[in-house]
Amino acid sequence: MNRDMTPQQIAEATAAGMYSRDHTAQSLGLVLDEIAPGRARLHMTVRKDMVNGHDICHGGLIFTLADSAFAYACNSYNHVTVAQGASIEFLAPGKLGDVLTATGKERHVAGKTGVYDIEVTNQDGQTIALFRGKSFRIRGHVVHGVPTIDT
Amino acid sequence: MNRDMTPQQIAEATAAGMYSRDHTAQSLGLVLDEIAPGRARLHMTVRKDMVNGHDICHGGLIFTLADSAFAYACNSYNHVTVAQGASIEFLAPGKLGDVLTATGKERHVAGKTGVYDIEVTNQDGQTIALFRGKSFRIRGHVVHGVPTIDT
Amino acid sequence: MNRDMTPQQIAEATAAGMYSRDHTAQSLGLVLDEIAPGRARLHMTVRKDMVNGHDICHGGLIFTLADSAFAYACNSYNHVTVAQGASIEFLAPGKLGDVLTATGKERHVAGKTGVYDIEVTNQDGQTIALFRGKSFRIRGHVVHGVPTIDT
Amino acid sequence: MNRDMTPQQIAEATAAGMYSRDHTAQSLGLVLDEIAPGRARLHMTVRKDMVNGHDICHGGLIFTLADSAFAYACNSYNHVTVAQGASIEFLAPGKLGDVLTATGKERHVAGKTGVYDIEVTNQDGQTIALFRGKSFRIRGHVVHGVPTIDT
Repeated sequence: MNRDMTPQQIAEATAAGMYSRDHTAQSLGLVLDEIAPGRARLHMTVRKDMVNGHDICHGGLIFTLADSAFAYACNSYNHVTVAQGASIEFLAPGKLGDVLTATGKERHVAGKTGVYDIEVTNQDGQTIALFRGKSFRIRGHVVHGVPTIDT
Repeated sequence: MNRDMTPQQIAEATAAGMYSRDHTAQSLGLVLDEIAPGRARLHMTVRKDMVNGHDICHGGLIFTLADSAFAYACNSYNHVTVAQGASIEFLAPGKLGDVLTATGKERHVAGKTGVYDIEVTNQDGQTIALFRGKSFRIRGHVVHGVPTIDT
Repeated sequence: MNRDMTPQQIAEATAAGMYSRDHTAQSLGLVLDEIAPGRARLHMTVRKDMVNGHDICHGGLIFTLADSAFAYACNSYNHVTVAQGASIEFLAPGKLGDVLTATGKERHVAGKTGVYDIEVTNQDGQTIALFRGKSFRIRGHVVHGVPTIDT
Repeated sequence: MNRDMTPQQIAEATAAGMYSRDHTAQSLGLVLDEIAPGRARLHMTVRKDMVNGHDICHGGLIFTLADSAFAYACNSYNHVTVAQGASIEFLAPGKLGDVLTATGKERHVAGKTGVYDIEVTNQDGQTIALFRGKSFRIRGHVVHGVPTIDT
């Protein structure tokens, strides 16, 4: 194990390892734009198969994008961390072809639990959803051969 | 318009119309098992492309399943109704091959807003998530040529 | 310690011990109507000092009533258990003189965490709020000389 | 009506009118430190009658403080605005004698609905709770003789 890795390098290595196994992110075309300790930014383009019966992006997929930013942010210390729960407020619809970006940052971590706020914006900078996730750290580390960081 | 349709017939016609345009539901293989005024039940099988970087069903897709039960339930009166927001508690993981069922029912409707509770269970009857959705009725009806019901 | 106490007796002894120290419940006039393992029911009468600037019961005090039902329900096993978080939906106002009842029951407990649903109704049986609380068990027991129950 | 009032003057006049009728705020000793369009800051000191059965500030009263910051912020345009719902995450306990401050700001307003984020800190600057409120504007204005602002 490389004990000389910086927190940023650990976050990047962890995200790369997670993404390689994250079939959901891959099949939805999620792109990881930025990763840092406690932070992540991803985007996706709203495809035809992401549209619901009202001709707008399915709220579940907006949630999935936000939840992914949450997951990459809260796992960035290389401790396996899962969602206990989350809430989302839908502020404006996503439309076919829109590029939606989820930016997530840590608000609080104490012991095994954390709170993360994620904002989803469209290509015009309009906020379309606000998401808050509650994390819980379980046993194990996300990628092998990479140090963990205690928060 | 057929004014003699029962509320159950209206719910069924509305759901059929919605599903035909719901590309997300179709691409995720969601199956609508039951629809009634203010109620819906759907299931999905956890596929390889629904698994995340921790080898469990992506929480966003469990949310999407629950959110879909919510959507079919709150649109069952044929008034276009969207999600204002929702919260979800994740109680147990979904695994590859699991059959997850979301059962949604109305808790309250007053004026344009409503609250719906959705429970997600697996094939063993274990509850894996609890979802609560807040709906908002906007203008328009979901399918044409079918009456609407005022709640 | 009396090891022969039933779960119901443990729940009652725990609630009595909690209430004796619960200055908030006492000052708001909360009355504990029913306690059982994982369940609690309390009521309060809306007083002049519980009314806000819109002449209706302050939402914070409706929350406090519901949160108290949650607290008595989740502590009923005599393990000290605190709220991690909660959400509430306000469905109808409470008015001066109304008698509001909060009925709480456990939806899920696994390890240290639990989910509880609380419904608040008025004297006419109308639901005025829906509350969902997330509990976390910490060290210690609520009352001494009374057994604890593992969930 | 004085049509020349600035948004800041309207916010101040509205808050003063609300506070004069807000028996809950008065009886809990809430102090309004700052008010502006879409923003409010209040504090309270944790008294003996605010402590629960675990010897810490009752979560319901931390919620009430946050909910009050939310209420003053969302009513600052002088349109009567009520809470549809709210969620709170409890991060650290409040203790007897602590001075808790709730700072609330608008995240989004569109039509009749809005989202507000409130942070509760103690006298050491530690965040003890995160609150998110969803508002709904109804008919009427909060104080008479003062203009309203459309958002």
